Amino acid sequence: MAKKYVYFFGGGKADGNESMKNLLGGKGANLAEMAGHKNLKLPVPPGFTITTEVCTHYYKNKKAYPKELKSQLNTAIEKTEKLMEKGFGNPGNPLLVSVRSGARRSMPGMMETILNVGLTSKTIPALIKQSGGNSRFVYDAYRRLIMMYSDVVMEKAAGIEPKDEQGIRKQLEKIMTQMKKDKAYKTDTDLKTEDLKKLCDLFKAKVKEVLKKDFPDGHNEQLWGSISAVFTSWNGKRAVSYRRIENIPDEWGTAVTVQTMVFGNMGNDCATGVAFTRNPGNGENKFYGEYLINAQGEDVVAGTRTPAPINKYSQSEHNKSLKTLEKGMPKIYKELFEYQNRLEKHYYDMQDLEFTIEKGRLFMLQCRVGKRNGPAAVRMAMDMLKERLIKKEQALMRVTPSQLDELLHPIIDPKIEITHKPLVKGLPAGPGGATGQIVFSANDAVAWAKQDKKVILVREETNPEDVEGMRVAQAILTARGGMTSHAALVARGWGKCCIVGCSALNVEHAKKEMSAGGKTLKEGDWITLNGTKGNVYEGKLPMIDAAEENKIFDDFLKLCDSVKKLGIRTNADTPEDARKARQFGAEGIGLFRTEHMFYGKGTEEPLFRLRKMIVSKTTEERQKALNELFPYVKKDIKGTLKAMDGLPVVIRLIDPPLHEFVPRDKNKLADLAKDLNISLEELSKRADALHESNPMMGHRGVRLGITYPEISQMQIRAIFEAAAELLKEGKKPYPEIMVPVVCDVKELRNQLSIAQNVYQEVLKKHNIKKIKHMFGTMIEIPRASFVANELAEVAEFFSYGTNDMTQMGFGFSRDDIGGFLPEYLQQGILPEDPFQSIDQKGIGELIKIGIQRGRKTNKKLEVGICGEHGGEPASVEFCHKVGMNYVSCSPFRVPIARLAAAQAVLKEKQNIRKVKTPQE
Amino acid sequence: MAKKYVYFFGGGKADGNESMKNLLGGKGANLAEMAGHKNLKLPVPPGFTITTEVCTHYYKNKKAYPKELKSQLNTAIEKTEKLMEKGFGNPGNPLLVSVRSGARRSMPGMMETILNVGLTSKTIPALIKQSGGNSRFVYDAYRRLIMMYSDVVMEKAAGIEPKDEQGIRKQLEKIMTQMKKDKAYKTDTDLKTEDLKKLCDLFKAKVKEVLKKDFPDGHNEQLWGSISAVFTSWNGKRAVSYRRIENIPDEWGTAVTVQTMVFGNMGNDCATGVAFTRNPGNGENKFYGEYLINAQGEDVVAGTRTPAPINKYSQSEHNKSLKTLEKGMPKIYKELFEYQNRLEKHYYDMQDLEFTIEKGRLFMLQCRVGKRNGPAAVRMAMDMLKERLIKKEQALMRVTPSQLDELLHPIIDPKIEITHKPLVKGLPAGPGGATGQIVFSANDAVAWAKQDKKVILVREETNPEDVEGMRVAQAILTARGGMTSHAALVARGWGKCCIVGCSALNVEHAKKEMSAGGKTLKEGDWITLNGTKGNVYEGKLPMIDAAEENKIFDDFLKLCDSVKKLGIRTNADTPEDARKARQFGAEGIGLFRTEHMFYGKGTEEPLFRLRKMIVSKTTEERQKALNELFPYVKKDIKGTLKAMDGLPVVIRLIDPPLHEFVPRDKNKLADLAKDLNISLEELSKRADALHESNPMMGHRGVRLGITYPEISQMQIRAIFEAAAELLKEGKKPYPEIMVPVVCDVKELRNQLSIAQNVYQEVLKKHNIKKIKHMFGTMIEIPRASFVANELAEVAEFFSYGTNDMTQMGFGFSRDDIGGFLPEYLQQGILPEDPFQSIDQKGIGELIKIGIQRGRKTNKKLEVGICGEHGGEPASVEFCHKVGMNYVSCSPFRVPIARLAAAQAVLKEKQNIRKVKTPQE
Repeated sequence: MAKKYVYFFGGGKADGNESMKNLLGGKGANLAEMAGHKNLKLPVPPGFTITTEVCTHYYKNKKAYPKELKSQLNTAIEKTEKLMEKGFGNPGNPLLVSVRSGARRSMPGMMETILNVGLTSKTIPALIKQSGGNSRFVYDAYRRLIMMYSDVVMEKAAGIEPKDEQGIRKQLEKIMTQMKKDKAYKTDTDLKTEDLKKLCDLFKAKVKEVLKKDFPDGHNEQLWGSISAVFTSWNGKRAVSYRRIENIPDEWGTAVTVQTMVFGNMGNDCATGVAFTRNPGNGENKFYGEYLINAQGEDVVAGTRTPAPINKYSQSEHNKSLKTLEKGMPKIYKELFEYQNRLEKHYYDMQDLEFTIEKGRLFMLQCRVGKRNGPAAVRMAMDMLKERLIKKEQALMRVTPSQLDELLHPIIDPKIEITHKPLVKGLPAGPGGATGQIVFSANDAVAWAKQDKKVILVREETNPEDVEGMRVAQAILTARGGMTSHAALVARGWGKCCIVGCSALNVEHAKKEMSAGGKTLKEGDWITLNGTKGNVYEGKLPMIDAAEENKIFDDFLKLCDSVKKLGIRTNADTPEDARKARQFGAEGIGLFRTEHMFYGKGTEEPLFRLRKMIVSKTTEERQKALNELFPYVKKDIKGTLKAMDGLPVVIRLIDPPLHEFVPRDKNKLADLAKDLNISLEELSKRADALHESNPMMGHRGVRLGITYPEISQMQIRAIFEAAAELLKEGKKPYPEIMVPVVCDVKELRNQLSIAQNVYQEVLKKHNIKKIKHMFGTMIEIPRASFVANELAEVAEFFSYGTNDMTQMGFGFSRDDIGGFLPEYLQQGILPEDPFQSIDQKGIGELIKIGIQRGRKTNKKLEVGICGEHGGEPASVEFCHKVGMNYVSCSPFRVPIARLAAAQAVLKEKQNIRKVKTPQE
Repeated sequence: MAKKYVYFFGGGKADGNESMKNLLGGKGANLAEMAGHKNLKLPVPPGFTITTEVCTHYYKNKKAYPKELKSQLNTAIEKTEKLMEKGFGNPGNPLLVSVRSGARRSMPGMMETILNVGLTSKTIPALIKQSGGNSRFVYDAYRRLIMMYSDVVMEKAAGIEPKDEQGIRKQLEKIMTQMKKDKAYKTDTDLKTEDLKKLCDLFKAKVKEVLKKDFPDGHNEQLWGSISAVFTSWNGKRAVSYRRIENIPDEWGTAVTVQTMVFGNMGNDCATGVAFTRNPGNGENKFYGEYLINAQGEDVVAGTRTPAPINKYSQSEHNKSLKTLEKGMPKIYKELFEYQNRLEKHYYDMQDLEFTIEKGRLFMLQCRVGKRNGPAAVRMAMDMLKERLIKKEQALMRVTPSQLDELLHPIIDPKIEITHKPLVKGLPAGPGGATGQIVFSANDAVAWAKQDKKVILVREETNPEDVEGMRVAQAILTARGGMTSHAALVARGWGKCCIVGCSALNVEHAKKEMSAGGKTLKEGDWITLNGTKGNVYEGKLPMIDAAEENKIFDDFLKLCDSVKKLGIRTNADTPEDARKARQFGAEGIGLFRTEHMFYGKGTEEPLFRLRKMIVSKTTEERQKALNELFPYVKKDIKGTLKAMDGLPVVIRLIDPPLHEFVPRDKNKLADLAKDLNISLEELSKRADALHESNPMMGHRGVRLGITYPEISQMQIRAIFEAAAELLKEGKKPYPEIMVPVVCDVKELRNQLSIAQNVYQEVLKKHNIKKIKHMFGTMIEIPRASFVANELAEVAEFFSYGTNDMTQMGFGFSRDDIGGFLPEYLQQGILPEDPFQSIDQKGIGELIKIGIQRGRKTNKKLEVGICGEHGGEPASVEFCHKVGMNYVSCSPFRVPIARLAAAQAVLKEKQNIRKVKTPQE
């Protein structure tokens, strides 16, 4: 039997079902499920889905289709015709179809859609007849088809790449704008039938003039052109760029769904809308949605008209004057409400629905797991758990670590905000607060962000071309569009602060100005957004953390803790960071970097002494400088041990190459020379001698501790003395001394013997019997993994330094990857930046080997990770799988790590009844 | 039963035997074998050996001995007394003993020896009686004991470290020199009995004055003091330094042998000597040795008197006037000759013997496998094979790779040498030729060598303190000493050019001058040595290779080839190197570095064009520069492919970061700017942009090929075009294209696709069907080993770049290890420099993983190594063990690699009857 490439759905039946997302795409699978599953059997306009395998075939075979496709497609068309009692291309009773993309995972707005396919000079008269003589509707549909088709199929898919302004769509829009201007029309709806008819003629002439081709008047040509265009759009620039960001593999491909057109724009008994089974903005268990009378779906998404609320609950400041669906079409609303109930029960999750009402008849167009922001995800998970709709394991899988991250985003300090009057208000499309400098184009946003500027992207409305700019911006502000507009959808997906539909805002793109309430702001001016309320403020308001004292958030994290096995520690170099991390649930410090007390402001004193030590030539000079440095180091360590009282604190001995600290400033060099009583020349000579060709792999870490044992002595003494003092103050300090850059056990033995001597001295001096502590090593040098069995004979703990291990394992100097890594990611040579997420193939193997060998000789070996990967969910899962005891990450990532650790357990168990995450 | 710490030997019996070297040391084991084995039963003075375990125990237990030692030692003393019919400390019939070190491997002169132990005020009279009233001999023995004991036991072993001139030995020597001067004596032998008696008194007074202690007058105190001193000397500075050089582990420890003293200096019927069963200088199968009448062994080694030849064969210019042992004591000579025969047959190898004749009676003091130089080792191996004394496998194991290396040392061009008259002549103690600048102290040698100067160390005579200086010198020249003097022994061990006993040479250390034949040369003047003949020439004579047209050498290497399994290739970047390597037996080129054509002299043209390419900003600029560069690259590759006609040539695509080639010179920058038609400022900006923090791990290798595919294209085109042209000329080019710095298979696929396109273009252009070639990758990034299974799906060969792999695996930047690696080696943290010999624990594992995974997906995968380790014997053995197909090394190392590869097979088989190498 020939391979099945086309899956039919409609009339209470379907070839496919929800489990076939990989083959039918999310949209196709859900349409099949909606149409065919015995619990659903919703009124879905009939149609069929061409599988993702056709897409793969298409790209593998120079854009040729499998030979079986045509006949299978024709059979599906016939079935559709039969169900609808219409004929595709039939001049008497024409069937129109939409052609849509649908990948395994939703990529909103990234690929192409063509509506009204099948509308030709032959079928127009019959459609007019069918619509009860609504010629205006038909010519409007036709001009939409011409605009979409000429742009998407004839230009984009054909590989023609005109400059923005010369694109066919822009040129057609110009004609339409000109006509409206000539006739003094305000909106598109003012256009009369004759206007539209004329527009269609003008459009077709323009298409011929610009693209040197006639607009196709055959229904089959239109259909096949549209299908090709969708497949082609899978590799369009926008789609590829989105896939990079979202880590979607190129190989997945898209399916194409061809479906009977139903019209929400045939008159006032028609409508189209989008709804969610629960509020995607805050998670409340309320049916939530918007609709537009006499409109097509694209009108809702595009945000050109403000949609009406479907019910009272969905009302806002901006749409409360508009009639709800519940009131306007109560019977239809009831039916819709019943369907949404059915859907949520069926899918055990919040659903995002698209519906159209054609001449008083409700059609369900689409259904998928609804995107939600972080706070909503947490709330829904906890609510559904209470409602017994889902179990604990499911609740935990319902929130992605990045959604949790949103809760950790700052908000404007409420105490300050209350004293400020908003410049302007809009729709609260993305939560949290943000402050930044205004830019008016995506390109500017990217350029400014590269200079480390915080920008807020301000647009009339956004479109898929703006994605890169939206990504780098702190927040997005648009004058037009609703809660389901492009800007709102994208921002919600990313958990980014966003305000849309700010209609009082006048954006002048060309002048790089915006004005509201009589005030004009220019590019570079600062504004602050409250994305939760929809308020825009002038200037820069202070931010605080959102998660503080959030009960649901805390409950959710406690749920995580009840499942997770990994300990979660934090990387903290100051008592302040330590305290903050403890609030976030950190169970200890996984990395305290001794040298960080020399960075930043207010560190001049200790830094000066450190420098003295560094440029010392004799052991005597060095010892003197170290003695001066000692009190600073001890004070810092003591503060942190105190803040983490009772919890372990891993203190790393000095790690970076000394040259890093040598001052470049002439005055500072002169001061140093004076203090050391040597000439500036001599000092420069000493400093130069420290310079290295590849400092990353030079004289650093334990290598310093071996060549200058007095440096290790001083640090270890500071640790034990600080602990001893705290013990006397009734505290419970628990330092873990960590030696960095170790490649051989003899290095470790050398340092251990220093530590043991100092330990005995400190015990004696303070007349105490014991200081609870551990001695261990960082594993960051590839070789260390191979000799881990030997290292573990000396080390009580391992802590993986995956940053350095990634550098050496890949031979990627992190400071120098700018020259090639972007290209590597662009070309797909590496699937992702290995400094972001642990490379499991290579670095992961090194880690596994190290743990396995280490535990072989030391069963009680404690193993953790302290690289930046410790707060990245995929890496946390990996750490769980390989049997680490804990991960350590920056304070703000602690909650994320707690969730990721819990999810790692659940994924491993694989005993979850039916778990869906919004990304599936 | 208590552990046995003391092993007795003597009287035709022995507790130990030759197989117990680890426990008894080489000397102790051989004494036991000589004394006790049924085939030998030689007249060895009885005694006993204290095991190396006592040494280990001594260092592990704060210099305390096992409690069982004392009683075991006393029992052994009693046995000795019984056999000798004397009593230790017996005032009527005293037994005297020597106390000597003996490690598993010989460490000549590195540890202490004390003779005449047991000579006290109580035993002196009896000894005088025993010696027939030879008071002079007895007081001479006593003053020697005082000198040695006070220096070795009372000063050195006690940890007293006076400056050189204040050492007790120097102070005692001064007294003796003063006495000789006062009495106008020329040599020590002029000293009368009374003089010596007085000297002993003066010595003892001085000892008391300087060391604040009486010279011990108890025989037991002397014995235990001496034993401790030997153990202490194991960790003396000289011994530790020697172990570092010779890679002897600290843990081995030394044994101590206590043996009855026999005296070669009791009169003219006494003698002492050193002999070899074959000539250690050239390998001839002739009994060879030297002896001194009326002397102790130390007199022979010290070289203070010129020894006489034992037979006619051992005569030289310098000793031909002296009476041979054969003539002087024919009966004894016959006995000795018979013993040496017995020994060589027993040990299947050339033996180094020490003997003493006491009052007409022959004693065998020592026997061990004799050190030999490279030419001698090869000759002996091939001779013994012919003589059927040993088998092929043994012959191959008899030559160490470093001995073979000696044959590759240069000699003075004979055509030039013949026209020169030697300045002075000496004993040919180390083979080959050498030229260098004169220095007069070991310290100066080290200091000058650090500045990359070639020095020849000229000394009156050398001593163990000079070892470091001898090592760095090109050659050693001494005025005194014989073929068995310190300088000769050490130089022979290292295969270093050396001339000793140049008695016509007057060395004035203080003035830094030497004179001979009326000429005076100063520090820094050039001289040239022919160590094979013993000729010293003024000035700098040209050198050529020794191995050229050496039949035995060739035969030996053919023997290697008949056993080895590894292929041996060479690293060569020029046709000249390629030709040379082919002569040495290279079976192909394992590494041709494209970029090396831009280094060195005469490369200005291509380098200029390379630089243009590097600072190009646009693809167009870069393509233009590449086009200009192309003919140079092609020419170079073609020349090398031609020189290796028929053999494979691995050509590596460009590897180093581009910044490496950017000129620093202002004029060169200006030229470049002019040619590129850009400002100097712009050029500097572009050059600066290429600068990297850690270039080793930056934008290099395949990363360049991916970001600038046109660079790879050009190189690959040059390879295929060169090959195509050669094919047309009737040659058989066989290029293997190698991509460097690969960490992922997608990099390789990317470059393969470039290569395939270029290949097709070249085939078409030249109208040929096929160019035999391979496409493969370097494995040097640690990650590459882990993804080797994927890499091998694309690569036809792997070549391990162990230099870079060692850098990244250890995190050791080779340019920056100077700051800590010497300290690491000094402290024994690493056993050896991992850039010299592959670190099998870490880097070796990476290699194994890579090969195993690579072969899993590609059974035919060719695997080689092209790092500098490819010519290092231990690394070659490793490469054999892990199943590589070939190693590649510098042309001069090819013969060494051939031998190492053969030995690797033999070691693996472990089926060798009885194989000894001189190092065992």
